[in-house]
Amino acid sequence: MKALEEKIREEGKVLPGNILKVGNFLNHRLDVQFLCEMGKEIARLYEGCGINKILTIETSGIAIAMGAAIHMGVPVVFAKKNKSKNVSGEVYCTDVVSFTHKNVSQVIVEKQFLSEKDRVLLVDDFLANGMALKGLIGICREAGVDIAGAAIAIEKGFQAGGDEIRAMGIRVESLAIVESMTDDSITFREQ
Amino acid sequence: MKALEEKIREEGKVLPGNILKVGNFLNHRLDVQFLCEMGKEIARLYEGCGINKILTIETSGIAIAMGAAIHMGVPVVFAKKNKSKNVSGEVYCTDVVSFTHKNVSQVIVEKQFLSEKDRVLLVDDFLANGMALKGLIGICREAGVDIAGAAIAIEKGFQAGGDEIRAMGIRVESLAIVESMTDDSITFREQ
Repeated sequence: MKALEEKIREEGKVLPGNILKVGNFLNHRLDVQFLCEMGKEIARLYEGCGINKILTIETSGIAIAMGAAIHMGVPVVFAKKNKSKNVSGEVYCTDVVSFTHKNVSQVIVEKQFLSEKDRVLLVDDFLANGMALKGLIGICREAGVDIAGAAIAIEKGFQAGGDEIRAMGIRVESLAIVESMTDDSITFREQ
Repeated sequence: MKALEEKIREEGKVLPGNILKVGNFLNHRLDVQFLCEMGKEIARLYEGCGINKILTIETSGIAIAMGAAIHMGVPVVFAKKNKSKNVSGEVYCTDVVSFTHKNVSQVIVEKQFLSEKDRVLLVDDFLANGMALKGLIGICREAGVDIAGAAIAIEKGFQAGGDEIRAMGIRVESLAIVESMTDDSITFREQ
């Protein structure tokens, strides 16, 4: 998605530790109109795939998942990182290591929100080492849910997550794939 | 908002500890179409108020803030609960005690995302003891930001937060105000 590549070039900042900061539109300040445009592109990519639900993970996946869900006419379920007092009943649970935060979170989805009849699209803001996405895939398999594929805003193509998940036979569509980045320049993979 | 009251009656569950669970549409599974309807009502309530930005707090405020932002044509900034590796630069910071989670979070907003020229609408899913909203108000005051008011999906009218914040001279619009609730019934305040 050329508009996203341009936006990353214009507004993104490369921080030490291979972190691409896009807080200006994707995960701190939300450019809602642009998130809806990204969502429209996700809906186009997965048109006719029989998706009835989007599964994402808090926090930064929620906004892009909403953008896609609006265009797809489906609900969103977001996996929660900390079991809270307002989660009751049986849950699917998995551990996720965060690249950004350098910690392990227990990620849960209440069983009532996933069904064997579901065909879900996984959505997240970033795909780097793929830990969050693998966590969601694990939850889907535990739930017996059919996975139509994954839609990612920004994939870091120089980290292994995307290749590993495609090698699992799962379709992964990333709106922008960063091939390499330095303080001064960001190169995208041709798609 | 009658449609929200009906939805809470139909899909909400009262859990021990005065917790109203609405995970089926508001904060675990997201009924995106309904969130957009709630957002439309928020936009109507604050029409002509000169709002140029919505400020909310992760996690559960993001979806309803998106719903409102779509109808208001403004961006969303969400306060983050844990300072993460992709937050850089100067931040506004406050402590928030969570009613649901029974813990204290340090909540931050990067200074670059709030300006003295802003006129913001505060948005959140719940208003109970008002700790989250007071945290956002504190950040706005530190930033010199003008507060147009607050828009809440569900206020627990039997807890003190709403009254306290209105007593501070801040306009608070709650789409549904729960006056009392038991295992069997939920009563709403007439608005």
